[in-house]
Amino acid sequence: MKVFIEPIGRLINEFTKLPGVGAKTAQRYAYKIINMPTAEVEAFAEALLCVKRDVRYCSVCGNFTEGELCDVCLTRDKSVVCVVKEPKDVIAVEKTHEFKGVYHVLHGTISPMDNVGPNDIRIKELLARIAEGGIEEVILATNPDVEGEATAMYITSLVKPLGIKVSRLAHGIPIGSDLEYTDEMTLARALADRKVL
Amino acid sequence: MKVFIEPIGRLINEFTKLPGVGAKTAQRYAYKIINMPTAEVEAFAEALLCVKRDVRYCSVCGNFTEGELCDVCLTRDKSVVCVVKEPKDVIAVEKTHEFKGVYHVLHGTISPMDNVGPNDIRIKELLARIAEGGIEEVILATNPDVEGEATAMYITSLVKPLGIKVSRLAHGIPIGSDLEYTDEMTLARALADRKVL
Repeated sequence: MKVFIEPIGRLINEFTKLPGVGAKTAQRYAYKIINMPTAEVEAFAEALLCVKRDVRYCSVCGNFTEGELCDVCLTRDKSVVCVVKEPKDVIAVEKTHEFKGVYHVLHGTISPMDNVGPNDIRIKELLARIAEGGIEEVILATNPDVEGEATAMYITSLVKPLGIKVSRLAHGIPIGSDLEYTDEMTLARALADRKVL
Repeated sequence: MKVFIEPIGRLINEFTKLPGVGAKTAQRYAYKIINMPTAEVEAFAEALLCVKRDVRYCSVCGNFTEGELCDVCLTRDKSVVCVVKEPKDVIAVEKTHEFKGVYHVLHGTISPMDNVGPNDIRIKELLARIAEGGIEEVILATNPDVEGEATAMYITSLVKPLGIKVSRLAHGIPIGSDLEYTDEMTLARALADRKVL
């Protein structure tokens, strides 16, 4: 006989689709659901459907939004644009509470290995925004990996000739870390980019 | 401004209700959901609702079932009853493929600290099943902790006088483990219960 009855087996299977969730964890989640009040499970299911139904991309910056434009595009200083790979990077920058400008989500980075070229990500949309005027600085906040660096360099080559300030996030030793455990690449960058006090 | 838009924030909040899921993990899960095809998310939501709607407890053994009686009660040898704390313990025993009898799920163990007495768990239901006749052996498979042991002893004191064989799962060194890392309690039990070859 099968070990799980059908509805439980099905739910366990659904949970294993989440990142990093194996059979054991999915089983724990399913038991938790079985023991939740029905109203709470209904709210959970509704939240799942809601996110697919109500979340879309801002027509200007490509970030998640419920309306046509996102809250950031509607309310903030449009002269500085922070370019990121994905909507979740917007969250990461927002959590610093330091950035007062707007965003441009590329929805990917240039990666020839994965057949992603400059035309497959939202670079032309960025150029169109710049062409409309009012943008004074473009901060390139793509990841510090091969694809992120290549994308940053490519965008720099297009935007800098337009006379717009282009900057890149600083590399260096993370706050609270230990020199001993910092990798050589990072430490070398931290040395090269050292700040005169 | 708030960091997450409402539908995403709500879904993250729902995910944090799962055991062991913190804000970061919930966020990863939510992003995965946003990037899933709508049909898959609908199947996920349906599986959640389904499990609350279709899963109930077997009227005989207390295990999860879709119908009135569970598959185990309908098809297996009723002369041996394995007594466990929770439905998930049934799954654990079933996975061994060694047990051919039926189960009795107590839905708890005696725990005076938590105000759970013998009448709060399904002990009288077990006695009623025994009174109906046909049961030759009761295997006590509650956990080897204080509450599980106390519950096993209590049930033994009620069932043994009825002339029914009562047994308890063997304690000892887990298969594949190392003597060096086995705790003293377990090793002492393994010594005391040593098997003559």
